[in-house]
Amino acid sequence: MGDISISNGNCMNGNGQRKSCWYEEEIEENLRWCFALNSILHTGATQFQDIQLLDTKPFGKALVIDGKLQSAEIDEFIYHESLVHPALLNHLNPKTIFIMGGGEGSTAREIVRHRTVEKVVMCDIDEEVVEFCKSFLVVNREAFCDPRLELIINDARAELERREQLYDVIIGDLADPIEGGPCYQLYTKSFYEFIVKPRLTQGGIFVTQAGPAGIFSHTEVFSCIYNTLKQVFKYVVPYSAHIPSYADTWGWVMASDSPFMSNADELDLRIKQRMKGENRYLDGKTFTSASTLSKAVRESLYSETHVYTEGNARFIYGHGTAYKHN
Amino acid sequence: MGDISISNGNCMNGNGQRKSCWYEEEIEENLRWCFALNSILHTGATQFQDIQLLDTKPFGKALVIDGKLQSAEIDEFIYHESLVHPALLNHLNPKTIFIMGGGEGSTAREIVRHRTVEKVVMCDIDEEVVEFCKSFLVVNREAFCDPRLELIINDARAELERREQLYDVIIGDLADPIEGGPCYQLYTKSFYEFIVKPRLTQGGIFVTQAGPAGIFSHTEVFSCIYNTLKQVFKYVVPYSAHIPSYADTWGWVMASDSPFMSNADELDLRIKQRMKGENRYLDGKTFTSASTLSKAVRESLYSETHVYTEGNARFIYGHGTAYKHN
Amino acid sequence: MGDISISNGNCMNGNGQRKSCWYEEEIEENLRWCFALNSILHTGATQFQDIQLLDTKPFGKALVIDGKLQSAEIDEFIYHESLVHPALLNHLNPKTIFIMGGGEGSTAREIVRHRTVEKVVMCDIDEEVVEFCKSFLVVNREAFCDPRLELIINDARAELERREQLYDVIIGDLADPIEGGPCYQLYTKSFYEFIVKPRLTQGGIFVTQAGPAGIFSHTEVFSCIYNTLKQVFKYVVPYSAHIPSYADTWGWVMASDSPFMSNADELDLRIKQRMKGENRYLDGKTFTSASTLSKAVRESLYSETHVYTEGNARFIYGHGTAYKHN
Amino acid sequence: MGDISISNGNCMNGNGQRKSCWYEEEIEENLRWCFALNSILHTGATQFQDIQLLDTKPFGKALVIDGKLQSAEIDEFIYHESLVHPALLNHLNPKTIFIMGGGEGSTAREIVRHRTVEKVVMCDIDEEVVEFCKSFLVVNREAFCDPRLELIINDARAELERREQLYDVIIGDLADPIEGGPCYQLYTKSFYEFIVKPRLTQGGIFVTQAGPAGIFSHTEVFSCIYNTLKQVFKYVVPYSAHIPSYADTWGWVMASDSPFMSNADELDLRIKQRMKGENRYLDGKTFTSASTLSKAVRESLYSETHVYTEGNARFIYGHGTAYKHN
Repeated sequence: MGDISISNGNCMNGNGQRKSCWYEEEIEENLRWCFALNSILHTGATQFQDIQLLDTKPFGKALVIDGKLQSAEIDEFIYHESLVHPALLNHLNPKTIFIMGGGEGSTAREIVRHRTVEKVVMCDIDEEVVEFCKSFLVVNREAFCDPRLELIINDARAELERREQLYDVIIGDLADPIEGGPCYQLYTKSFYEFIVKPRLTQGGIFVTQAGPAGIFSHTEVFSCIYNTLKQVFKYVVPYSAHIPSYADTWGWVMASDSPFMSNADELDLRIKQRMKGENRYLDGKTFTSASTLSKAVRESLYSETHVYTEGNARFIYGHGTAYKHN
Repeated sequence: MGDISISNGNCMNGNGQRKSCWYEEEIEENLRWCFALNSILHTGATQFQDIQLLDTKPFGKALVIDGKLQSAEIDEFIYHESLVHPALLNHLNPKTIFIMGGGEGSTAREIVRHRTVEKVVMCDIDEEVVEFCKSFLVVNREAFCDPRLELIINDARAELERREQLYDVIIGDLADPIEGGPCYQLYTKSFYEFIVKPRLTQGGIFVTQAGPAGIFSHTEVFSCIYNTLKQVFKYVVPYSAHIPSYADTWGWVMASDSPFMSNADELDLRIKQRMKGENRYLDGKTFTSASTLSKAVRESLYSETHVYTEGNARFIYGHGTAYKHN
Repeated sequence: MGDISISNGNCMNGNGQRKSCWYEEEIEENLRWCFALNSILHTGATQFQDIQLLDTKPFGKALVIDGKLQSAEIDEFIYHESLVHPALLNHLNPKTIFIMGGGEGSTAREIVRHRTVEKVVMCDIDEEVVEFCKSFLVVNREAFCDPRLELIINDARAELERREQLYDVIIGDLADPIEGGPCYQLYTKSFYEFIVKPRLTQGGIFVTQAGPAGIFSHTEVFSCIYNTLKQVFKYVVPYSAHIPSYADTWGWVMASDSPFMSNADELDLRIKQRMKGENRYLDGKTFTSASTLSKAVRESLYSETHVYTEGNARFIYGHGTAYKHN
Repeated sequence: MGDISISNGNCMNGNGQRKSCWYEEEIEENLRWCFALNSILHTGATQFQDIQLLDTKPFGKALVIDGKLQSAEIDEFIYHESLVHPALLNHLNPKTIFIMGGGEGSTAREIVRHRTVEKVVMCDIDEEVVEFCKSFLVVNREAFCDPRLELIINDARAELERREQLYDVIIGDLADPIEGGPCYQLYTKSFYEFIVKPRLTQGGIFVTQAGPAGIFSHTEVFSCIYNTLKQVFKYVVPYSAHIPSYADTWGWVMASDSPFMSNADELDLRIKQRMKGENRYLDGKTFTSASTLSKAVRESLYSETHVYTEGNARFIYGHGTAYKHN
């Protein structure tokens, strides 16, 4: 133990300690992304997943599931505003919403900001993750208590099959469609055609997170999700946004059999009329930009031929290392 | 030394070796970005800078100057197409171009693809970096030999002051305007007003790289460069693009006293008419998206009040750790 | 948030999460030592130092001060048994002990295991570190409550000067003698000659931790501490041991004006007669081995000519980055 | 590309670049050891293994096989002097030596320093590694050309079975006996009993590297190798040394049916009489210390009950991730 003289004390309170603990994520095998840590707030394991709540220096509190960053305090609003608002604002009067997954609570939080919404069903399979997030993600506490929210612990596919209600908007807030991964079957053509679409009201909209959408990474799943939805819906809009804590641009795809509005001003007007609070990320111009993909990504999406089907999935169970964000 | 039996040989040629060497960059004090390496191709030191050419697994060959990634083989086209083409395509007939910096050669490479161009002056202060890039960056070799290119080794400010010629487009391909940094004085209001603008022809356009432009990082220098140029030029267009190897969205600002064209189709037409080869990144729609900033960045740029002036720069010489991507 | 199907659940609870948080220490500028973390138990800052208690996977709970590992649960016994027992066992009847530093409490814990000991003075300058260790280092709790222990918060030099009592053993459990560092003056010839030696009883022994003692690292401070003590005491014994969590061999030097016993069996006998509990590391043979240095280190120590003196210390205050373990 | 003003140039040639490339080794799953790199000198793959020659800042040139450090320029002498000299010096007149493995050449280099030696057979299975080391490890070039050296490319077990000659010393310079690993069968009781021992001359000595021998790591293989050899030979001496680049203490075991000499002075005398050049690490006192194990390791070795036998090895082929140094 050091006996430290006063004269030097200040000099020792330097950077050393401040950078000694790190969270490290393998974005891919040859690429790592490392955040300095303030603390590891909570660690746990559910029946399905390992879960951690970290306090990171660059991105604030971060939820990590099975060693993959799910969302970071400082920029999860980009992901969740992008997932929720374009679909709800494009709908003329969204009253009933179904979330597949979404146990973190942030998707519900954004949904209940829409005054038109009367009912939100959140269906996540992992009760313990939901409880963990309820307890520790203070920012979503109010949403979890919103009387319009119905929380169901079940497999989202089974739940949608079981239910007879229709929804104005169905939102996919699930892990990526890795073949053999836990969520692959929630991204297939037959799932969209026979389970999702029949559960949408007239004019209903389906939107899903769609994995990395960077200039190189969009071919992993984004282009295939887009192409698969194109087989099922008349109108399909892919869009993307850079999320700093993911070290990548992220993608979403919105689909419907009714045409989408493309006017930035109209979108801004609806935000004003229908939403409580102010968006931090999304407005009309932002969505115009987000849904205008760069040349390389656009051309690649249009020329994508792969369609996710149950038939072509090889279902290599336990292909666990390939899981991506969300 | 191992004596290895044949039966197990194949199993040992696994991933171990493939991930054991890494390049690590501190994006900021609390954030690191790490690439697996194939090899360190060249290492050297010039009068001004340390320089390395690395062969990285995720991003191909990468030029690193003073421990900061400058450009990576796999995505430098995003940076250089964004820097060069919007300005040249917005100009009605760009014949003469002046590059401040640009010693890597990629900026010149993109410029000479424009058939209208008759003369390119590239003015970089570090002869050894230029020689290094000439020798090792095969992709730019042809550009370095283009008869329209005049290469000058000098301080860009001194060179512009010295010269009497006017240019249709002046391009800033320099390190960020860190106060006290080597390039600060090439980003000030007085430099733009009294040195750059007088060297532009009628209808001339100035464009500069403008540092990180992410949802958080744009306040470092992007918003100030934008605001400073707004004090000097009538029309100022900020735009941005995500560059994977930088782990961030990057920004550029284009300025002129003549209005810019805003039509994506017209831009596509000019690409077709005037440019040799095909762009990988930029086209009309891409630029529309790139120049439509997201809500947070847009509002922050419009409310920026700081102007870079020689007066308010404190010129803390040797403030070297703060250098960012060029 | 992932909606995870049961069939794959188990596969996801893999290694990902288990290796995502790390403690990283720069052993030297070009060498890093990284431990996977379970959690960051406590973080704090005192008037003098930053302090952390980490739960590491490879080494258990670890105390980190100013970004440097001080001691790890799993192997601190090697350091503390080596620091305390050779001196106390070589003394014929050690009753009074003075610890310079030692605020962690482990040195006191080992001392009070000796039945001969009647009085232990622990003098550490940093009250908050002592309080932190009292609260969190459960293994030392009993020692902190031992009625023979007198805890003083003061500079060790000032305290020794102030006191008139003599001690049978004086123990230096301080940071390394980096020139300009906080503890340099507690390693000088004049300190040993005029302050330490006069406070030793007849037959008294002084022992100090002496920094890294590896085949290369022993020249940093180990050989100089040895040589400095040789100027002041008749008998000086350097010894070393590999401490896994330090990623190095560590050194101690024991000095006296009375000759040391060199018989391993006699040392084992005294352990049996005088000490409560069993040592995990030290016995007669272990000390024989530890005090028989390898050829390279032995020759280097014998040819060392540098002596720490107040005169030759340049006292570059704030030379903080060079601090080593302890 | 930066245009750098002269006034700040020097400040940029800082530490940034110097620490940006790293070699990283997983000592164990939760422990990493990272060296800054100057360059990656050579990379290759043989039929059996991947191989790299790195220029590291802390440890000089380093040979890495399948992602594991084999030997580093700066401290390989500790490993190779410890492997070779105790056995050869304990033998009264070692003339013929057989090396199992050893393709790096350093073991042969140390052997040919002994004037008594007339014949050295080096039997390594991987011809390409041997060729790589011949070409790139300048320090061993002379040994590879020594007329007393016979180089055989074969499995060491097959070669020993095939040969009828006897050897004064047989040296195991092989990968650790991981069950199912390539070298397991070269560490079993039956191999020692029926293949090695019959190939030793009267008074012959067998010595083998024996894996990590740290206070915790010695239970991995060191204690079992010791215990297995005790079943076969009358006299067995385990010893160890800290090797900085391995971040651990390493072990060797020497075995014979004739008693070993235990006098440090006699060992020093034989070094003087029989060896060319001077040892950097090993002398009589060093070996006394190295072969006097610390309490914890000593007791653990004596109480070890596991014996490597072909019967109890499960031969999980391809258990490749567990390979350790050498």
